[in-house]
Amino acid sequence: MLLHLSTWPEIEAWLAHSKTVVIPIGSNEQHGPTGLLGTDWLCPEIIAHEAHRQAPGDILIGPTFNVGMAQHHLDFPGTIALRPSTFMLAIGDWARSLAHHGFEKLFFLNGHGGNVSTIDAAFSELYAEASYASRQRGFACKQRNWWDLAGVSKLAYQQFPAGHGSHATPSEIAVTQWGYPDSIKSANYAPQIAPSGPIREAKDFRARFADGRMGSDPGLATPEKGGELVKLAVQGLLAEVKAFSAETPASAAQAADGAVYPSPAVG
Amino acid sequence: MLLHLSTWPEIEAWLAHSKTVVIPIGSNEQHGPTGLLGTDWLCPEIIAHEAHRQAPGDILIGPTFNVGMAQHHLDFPGTIALRPSTFMLAIGDWARSLAHHGFEKLFFLNGHGGNVSTIDAAFSELYAEASYASRQRGFACKQRNWWDLAGVSKLAYQQFPAGHGSHATPSEIAVTQWGYPDSIKSANYAPQIAPSGPIREAKDFRARFADGRMGSDPGLATPEKGGELVKLAVQGLLAEVKAFSAETPASAAQAADGAVYPSPAVG
Amino acid sequence: MLLHLSTWPEIEAWLAHSKTVVIPIGSNEQHGPTGLLGTDWLCPEIIAHEAHRQAPGDILIGPTFNVGMAQHHLDFPGTIALRPSTFMLAIGDWARSLAHHGFEKLFFLNGHGGNVSTIDAAFSELYAEASYASRQRGFACKQRNWWDLAGVSKLAYQQFPAGHGSHATPSEIAVTQWGYPDSIKSANYAPQIAPSGPIREAKDFRARFADGRMGSDPGLATPEKGGELVKLAVQGLLAEVKAFSAETPASAAQAADGAVYPSPAVG
Amino acid sequence: MLLHLSTWPEIEAWLAHSKTVVIPIGSNEQHGPTGLLGTDWLCPEIIAHEAHRQAPGDILIGPTFNVGMAQHHLDFPGTIALRPSTFMLAIGDWARSLAHHGFEKLFFLNGHGGNVSTIDAAFSELYAEASYASRQRGFACKQRNWWDLAGVSKLAYQQFPAGHGSHATPSEIAVTQWGYPDSIKSANYAPQIAPSGPIREAKDFRARFADGRMGSDPGLATPEKGGELVKLAVQGLLAEVKAFSAETPASAAQAADGAVYPSPAVG
Amino acid sequence: MLLHLSTWPEIEAWLAHSKTVVIPIGSNEQHGPTGLLGTDWLCPEIIAHEAHRQAPGDILIGPTFNVGMAQHHLDFPGTIALRPSTFMLAIGDWARSLAHHGFEKLFFLNGHGGNVSTIDAAFSELYAEASYASRQRGFACKQRNWWDLAGVSKLAYQQFPAGHGSHATPSEIAVTQWGYPDSIKSANYAPQIAPSGPIREAKDFRARFADGRMGSDPGLATPEKGGELVKLAVQGLLAEVKAFSAETPASAAQAADGAVYPSPAVG
Amino acid sequence: MLLHLSTWPEIEAWLAHSKTVVIPIGSNEQHGPTGLLGTDWLCPEIIAHEAHRQAPGDILIGPTFNVGMAQHHLDFPGTIALRPSTFMLAIGDWARSLAHHGFEKLFFLNGHGGNVSTIDAAFSELYAEASYASRQRGFACKQRNWWDLAGVSKLAYQQFPAGHGSHATPSEIAVTQWGYPDSIKSANYAPQIAPSGPIREAKDFRARFADGRMGSDPGLATPEKGGELVKLAVQGLLAEVKAFSAETPASAAQAADGAVYPSPAVG
Repeated sequence: MLLHLSTWPEIEAWLAHSKTVVIPIGSNEQHGPTGLLGTDWLCPEIIAHEAHRQAPGDILIGPTFNVGMAQHHLDFPGTIALRPSTFMLAIGDWARSLAHHGFEKLFFLNGHGGNVSTIDAAFSELYAEASYASRQRGFACKQRNWWDLAGVSKLAYQQFPAGHGSHATPSEIAVTQWGYPDSIKSANYAPQIAPSGPIREAKDFRARFADGRMGSDPGLATPEKGGELVKLAVQGLLAEVKAFSAETPASAAQAADGAVYPSPAVG
Repeated sequence: MLLHLSTWPEIEAWLAHSKTVVIPIGSNEQHGPTGLLGTDWLCPEIIAHEAHRQAPGDILIGPTFNVGMAQHHLDFPGTIALRPSTFMLAIGDWARSLAHHGFEKLFFLNGHGGNVSTIDAAFSELYAEASYASRQRGFACKQRNWWDLAGVSKLAYQQFPAGHGSHATPSEIAVTQWGYPDSIKSANYAPQIAPSGPIREAKDFRARFADGRMGSDPGLATPEKGGELVKLAVQGLLAEVKAFSAETPASAAQAADGAVYPSPAVG
Repeated sequence: MLLHLSTWPEIEAWLAHSKTVVIPIGSNEQHGPTGLLGTDWLCPEIIAHEAHRQAPGDILIGPTFNVGMAQHHLDFPGTIALRPSTFMLAIGDWARSLAHHGFEKLFFLNGHGGNVSTIDAAFSELYAEASYASRQRGFACKQRNWWDLAGVSKLAYQQFPAGHGSHATPSEIAVTQWGYPDSIKSANYAPQIAPSGPIREAKDFRARFADGRMGSDPGLATPEKGGELVKLAVQGLLAEVKAFSAETPASAAQAADGAVYPSPAVG
Repeated sequence: MLLHLSTWPEIEAWLAHSKTVVIPIGSNEQHGPTGLLGTDWLCPEIIAHEAHRQAPGDILIGPTFNVGMAQHHLDFPGTIALRPSTFMLAIGDWARSLAHHGFEKLFFLNGHGGNVSTIDAAFSELYAEASYASRQRGFACKQRNWWDLAGVSKLAYQQFPAGHGSHATPSEIAVTQWGYPDSIKSANYAPQIAPSGPIREAKDFRARFADGRMGSDPGLATPEKGGELVKLAVQGLLAEVKAFSAETPASAAQAADGAVYPSPAVG
Repeated sequence: MLLHLSTWPEIEAWLAHSKTVVIPIGSNEQHGPTGLLGTDWLCPEIIAHEAHRQAPGDILIGPTFNVGMAQHHLDFPGTIALRPSTFMLAIGDWARSLAHHGFEKLFFLNGHGGNVSTIDAAFSELYAEASYASRQRGFACKQRNWWDLAGVSKLAYQQFPAGHGSHATPSEIAVTQWGYPDSIKSANYAPQIAPSGPIREAKDFRARFADGRMGSDPGLATPEKGGELVKLAVQGLLAEVKAFSAETPASAAQAADGAVYPSPAVG
Repeated sequence: MLLHLSTWPEIEAWLAHSKTVVIPIGSNEQHGPTGLLGTDWLCPEIIAHEAHRQAPGDILIGPTFNVGMAQHHLDFPGTIALRPSTFMLAIGDWARSLAHHGFEKLFFLNGHGGNVSTIDAAFSELYAEASYASRQRGFACKQRNWWDLAGVSKLAYQQFPAGHGSHATPSEIAVTQWGYPDSIKSANYAPQIAPSGPIREAKDFRARFADGRMGSDPGLATPEKGGELVKLAVQGLLAEVKAFSAETPASAAQAADGAVYPSPAVG
């Protein structure tokens, strides 16, 4: 079910049997010489909408949160960025709105590595609101990068054993090629595999990564490979949403989701 | 040109000949028993994308800002709202990002009456930043409701002489029916024409407007009427964007856009 | 009754029979070569205090909120401006304070067109607080420009058929001349009728409107015409306050105040 | 000169010979059974305007900042309070606006003890803006309670050797009686001298101070005593404004104003 | 008891018999040519920890809040400053956290004069939260400068009859010499007694106070004098904490703490 | 060199040869039945101060940032938490202060897994400030968990092959036992190895983790094992600080620090 193509009575009916909603979330930012500016929000949207097409009764997809934490890309035209503080406030308002209707499981399918920390901080801000007030939050938040869905990253590295990199990767570009076959771009670029390095402010970023790529060779992408990735991601998404929906609050039983802290974390 | 389906070098090339970008902006909120939750962001997106299809070289469309000032609709499931303060911060970050690339004319095509004041306040916040700092802002912001484009409102009242109302109107629903013919909904509702009244907090709103409509009979909508509205709106949009692009900064000549203050304003 | 010249037990007594308070609100900003910097807060204060003198038992007037959204006037000496975000927080604190005492109807008599959007956004922020918390707000906010009171704008255009304009208008200057006859100023200015145009940042504004006027010929003002305007405005104010006070919350009956959305609004 | 009864060219002319402006600042809050709700902003306004009447060419008075830090009085009807954080933002915007025009000495004549810390914190916030940016602020801020002007407090204790107290004091009430002789109130209250104690939240405050007075017997006030206090305060104000205006920035010579830190401060 | 060297069950046990916690709070800022950058947070920490050593069962000391309002010192290397607005938010979160556990008396032992106003404003912000919500705050906040503890300031002026000054004072330096005998520094400086003056932005401060001292001759400090000061301060602290703990909420009896308003305050 | 035990001229001298400063950062929060509330800020402080003792001329240690993102622990007495938004503002002010003096490399040695995302978001907020302003930031930020220093985590798992867990771990407790041998606590607890699960609001956390431990058996800790960990961590810290100091800004050469995005990140 797509929330934005539904009426409010349809959502009311949905809530009678499920308390879970999936929000595709990403960023609108440069993706190298050939990648679409929308890549990072298009990928989770493509995957989520494909999951909806395959199993419309099993999943509710909200509108796509299409602008995120992309300050480092601002020296490349077309990038639109929210400051982390703005991003957190906006995620908070989305979450509070959805929880207001009775949603108890908010699943953010993320398409941008640069969003991860800020989304996590936004969740903590939401939880803190309840913690200071000595009350239960009433809903749980979860984010999952689409490439961290079961098997996806492994497949990406099989498809692209060299030149995958970490930004403007052939895997994400392949997914958009599959989703938007009329918008496949090509360009000459060099070196074939882009450099790597730390991520700081926009000027530093542009100095390090002249055409916007990080460690990647996006020309390896094909729509077919994108389709394979989408197929696997859809399976993973449906499974994770099902498991998240089934999770009961604060039971004695151990929950499966320990993802807030990357292991091995101490402290 | 669609920004999110373009690469950054393509936007760089666009900026060589135009400094204008159009952002469809709306709200994700209940639209009565038959209206889609996405109506208010789908309408400007439909119109803007249709303008792009007709004249791809004349207009650049950014990603859709799909959640806005909808606090009053929160007691209807599926509504997602930003607090005005959050909305202003997010509009500010979008605008600063676009201006960073050299865009000098930011045209927001709006689909939600409830957004108007907050968008206007957000523009003032952006201008104020420059005013306090004794510098030029470097860009101009403009918002236009799609129904205020030349001739559109007049046509809507011709199409729907009774029961147009002000929320979940047959005209906006018709536009989405034209844009999403597979998502046309029907429902029984009464009274045929919904009540009118002031807009306050969500509980008050729901008490006044039991099914979410305000003064409207959305059942009058047809995809054909929607198509007529879109056709006229596209003409108006292209004309306004052209005029806005042609406007020169702070010249002695009077500018055409006096829209920030509704006339007759004194003070 | 004037709140600031009353004691707290007097306000407690007032609340036993009325839940309405009127706040004159305006701006301290340049008003052309002859207009007082206080014009926009003096006008609503003059009208409200005159209403008090005529009907002291029918109306309670709070202190004047004398600085507002005037960033565009900052390049003219004497202007004091709040950023929209600050203005919203301050209006919020005033409203929460008054509601804390039991006031249920907060009527802001506005004297500055540039305030309208931000005041409206501030009201929405206040309502949103209740909407997210799933509770009733407990009070209603209303703003009315003094020139929008019944008959006032019509009279102004009869008095000044040419050269009324939209800033430093002869009507607002006439009101201050009536209220402060010892502070009537004169000056040579040209052209006789000032230019019109959009409102943006302060530098742009000063470039467009060299002496601060917008479309107006303030020399047409006389204290007598000001007195006529005040007389009519007082009648309108007392009538609107009475009607607002009589309004019952969220009844099935349609309320008279649909002013948040300028008609014809769709969306 | 009164800023709000002047035109912008008049302020421009003022700035040619003086860079100092005086802002009366206070609070709108309960003042016991007989004190006016406006007492704390009326007192500095009365004194400042009287100074203007005596020496119009020597002093420029801005509009009165009439609502301040009064959260502890909120359980008494008529009190209007800003949160400290809002108050600081608003003071900041006033100061930045005035400095924008070239004012270099911002003198706040304060009428409310509860404002002192927040005004001081607001000044520090303004200075910090420049400090982090490694630049000069360009203006200096100073606050002075009217009762701390030369000789005033001493006179007050001579006039009221017992029952002066610290809130709803006979001295401040006497000043308003002198300024507003038509608004002198009387009431029975007991005990004759109110209790003293700490200031915390509104509920605690009302429990400690049943009628709003703190340590005072306001019935001792007379308009004549108020006139004596105003006379002395006007002298002190004109002298302090003159000295503050004459102060040169950061000279090697020691400046006279060490008032930010009450002595004997270590640390 | 030192909170940070305790376990949560130990704090739970503490709360069974006492609701008071002491937070040493200061600033990390330049202290002239010989003073430690940590002086202002080390002093209250030294005194509080010494009180703990003498009477571990009578006092609970929290972690030290070691960075405060020091914007004026930013042009001296090593200074770390919070903007007042940030400082207030952080104090608020500390206080809400401690109150969450049941602490009802939050005693901040302050080591920096520049903190006083902002800490006071932070307390008001916390109280305001309860006041607007018409509820009791549930806890009381108190700040005390260590030099204002009974007898301390008097002793300091006896020890240093000339050259005490107000920043980088021999008394505070003596306390750190007693606490950190391995970190006693010496330097040549001139003049022997530093100048005095107002405190504004960092550039102004550095221009007035070339080596960072204000009115002081820190070379007079000795560890022995520091020990005498600590001894007296510990007595004062234990006594004040005992009295504050014994204070009952909002009783009719007058409370001993009237320190929020420096006397003689009117208004 | 310890910044807080130095004078400002000593820091000025340091800056002549190094632009790097290390800030121990952690959290003050419950650590199970035997762990100290200060564990997470004591561990990085112990390690950093030990590095200073071993190589005082090679490393400059600032004051410890001792309260962080610990909202989930608030239902255990003694925890003090900053909301993520507050934490970000405070980190921002620390960083801006240090950069103001010329520090170009800000190294945060972190002791709390729950801090990681918010610290990262705070860095992005700082970078964004420069990115929107089209300027270079002038400094680089880096965070490193002490257990992620070379070899430390591996040693911890060798020392504690079972029951290491992720909160109140035997490794962090061992470090504090080594640093504070007089504060070693013991307690009976069950089960021997605590449960695991997701981290949400405080009430949920306490329901899942009854005594505060997560997956750990802290009784395995010994001061000796703590000493081994500290020894390795000190080596790692000195090496990382050296490498970070040597890093040149935005060179064509690939930088070594790709740690902001955990690999394999796409998007």
